[in-house]
Amino acid sequence: MEFGNIERLQVGTILQSRREMKTLGYHTPIQAGIWGASKTGACSIVLSEGYEDDIDEIDYIKYTGHGGRDPRSPKQIADQEFTVGNKGLQISCDYNLPVRVWRGFQTKYGPEKGYRYDGIYYVKEYERVIGVSGFYICRFHLVSEDSYEKIIDKIDSTIKDDAGTPERVPTKGSRIKRDYSLPDIIKRKYSSKCQVCGVQLKSPSGDIAIGAHIKGLGKPHEGPDKLSNMLCLCPNHHAQFDAFSFYIEPKNLEIKNLEGFEGKKIKIKHKIDMKYFAYHKEIFNEKNSNTQN
Amino acid sequence: MEFGNIERLQVGTILQSRREMKTLGYHTPIQAGIWGASKTGACSIVLSEGYEDDIDEIDYIKYTGHGGRDPRSPKQIADQEFTVGNKGLQISCDYNLPVRVWRGFQTKYGPEKGYRYDGIYYVKEYERVIGVSGFYICRFHLVSEDSYEKIIDKIDSTIKDDAGTPERVPTKGSRIKRDYSLPDIIKRKYSSKCQVCGVQLKSPSGDIAIGAHIKGLGKPHEGPDKLSNMLCLCPNHHAQFDAFSFYIEPKNLEIKNLEGFEGKKIKIKHKIDMKYFAYHKEIFNEKNSNTQN
Repeated sequence: MEFGNIERLQVGTILQSRREMKTLGYHTPIQAGIWGASKTGACSIVLSEGYEDDIDEIDYIKYTGHGGRDPRSPKQIADQEFTVGNKGLQISCDYNLPVRVWRGFQTKYGPEKGYRYDGIYYVKEYERVIGVSGFYICRFHLVSEDSYEKIIDKIDSTIKDDAGTPERVPTKGSRIKRDYSLPDIIKRKYSSKCQVCGVQLKSPSGDIAIGAHIKGLGKPHEGPDKLSNMLCLCPNHHAQFDAFSFYIEPKNLEIKNLEGFEGKKIKIKHKIDMKYFAYHKEIFNEKNSNTQN
Repeated sequence: MEFGNIERLQVGTILQSRREMKTLGYHTPIQAGIWGASKTGACSIVLSEGYEDDIDEIDYIKYTGHGGRDPRSPKQIADQEFTVGNKGLQISCDYNLPVRVWRGFQTKYGPEKGYRYDGIYYVKEYERVIGVSGFYICRFHLVSEDSYEKIIDKIDSTIKDDAGTPERVPTKGSRIKRDYSLPDIIKRKYSSKCQVCGVQLKSPSGDIAIGAHIKGLGKPHEGPDKLSNMLCLCPNHHAQFDAFSFYIEPKNLEIKNLEGFEGKKIKIKHKIDMKYFAYHKEIFNEKNSNTQN
């Protein structure tokens, strides 16, 4: 199982069948959409029939894992679990492994015939939530390593005619680049002390803290890269904040749902825009109401 | 400043001069070895004269930052700081950004003439230590995204004759792949409780803990991927362990140099090989004796 770019395989390449993809070693399972396992992670997925919960925006894909479907229809009839390929995609997220994405002729932005290789994506988040069917699904948020415009450039001529290019104005070069000096500014303001617990972690190469975005950068959250959207957190509370274990009440800055911190407020030494806390709280509610542990 | 692969630029490409590299936009500074800044990270470095502390093993490079040198000789005459390009490489490490590496004709494994593009590397670690000159240097450990054998395959014909290929037996396909199920095994053994502090971090997508390697995987540490080389740690103590803020005494498992944990021992529920703690302690001593904060 090879991860990442395969030398001979160019973005935009179309193969006629799943069997051909198997023969060339690009995606070995003939049926399964996910090529992956719990030891290795998942290296490749194929978008084909599509689950009822899927979303495709070319550079961003909301993808449902496998399992729990009626063999005779695309209907969900049982819960999905983080096993086999779903576990593989979870590993690919946790360890930031590259995933090759193929779009089939069955999909909105796929080719007229066969399966097209659309490049490397990364799994940015996953969750297990109740899908529209009423059953639990494993959901993955995949983001392309290329910008929307770059992908379109490479595959444009092969997108099927009836779908056309999606309604979005190409904005070449307008992609916001991240400013890596902002985390340093935040860390200096708080002397690298966590705004939740106050811990200051020393190391021989400098204090350890994370300049964390409240509303996540880029897809799927599209939060802005500015100080008013950032916090200074220790790695533990950063991991829990990003996993929506707790939230900050935008009305009074109280820490909510975090053991040992009931009724406490975060320390503030810079201007934060409360709408980002409100957004984070909204996702918190979605993930925590929907989730089985 | 473009990061990562550039479409037209193949690994093994040789350009005749730094000016040509600038004109084509591959490495814009004419003199500086590092193309980077504190806001963006560093996207490209050129290995040329070489600092007295540098090591080049093709897939692994121990690279000294810039600054503090006598303008008329390669001698170090002052301390280096994490500013400009050095700050850029530090950012590239913290955020795992791809760095393009060029080897010049002046280097052991460079081409006969000009500068050869040798592909994408990642900065795995950095430190500020006293170099052989007696002055502080910023040191970076870069590891290629490709295996040693793959790089050699791509550039072999252009390595200068007098250096030849380095003395190492190519071991195609023998590269150890990581087993991503091991962290899960470790986490289950400890119910995701940190072996240092005992904290158990909840989240809606499962408990948060890290199956951490004691002797780091791959270059530069070359630790093995097995349970006897692993710990279950919370993100905070993982970050501090990896940054050599503290160590575990191999003789008695006591936690050393960590505020609040003096005289305490880590909890053990699986077999750990003490030689990995001894290795980690050795690096701890090197980093902490040498380091200025």
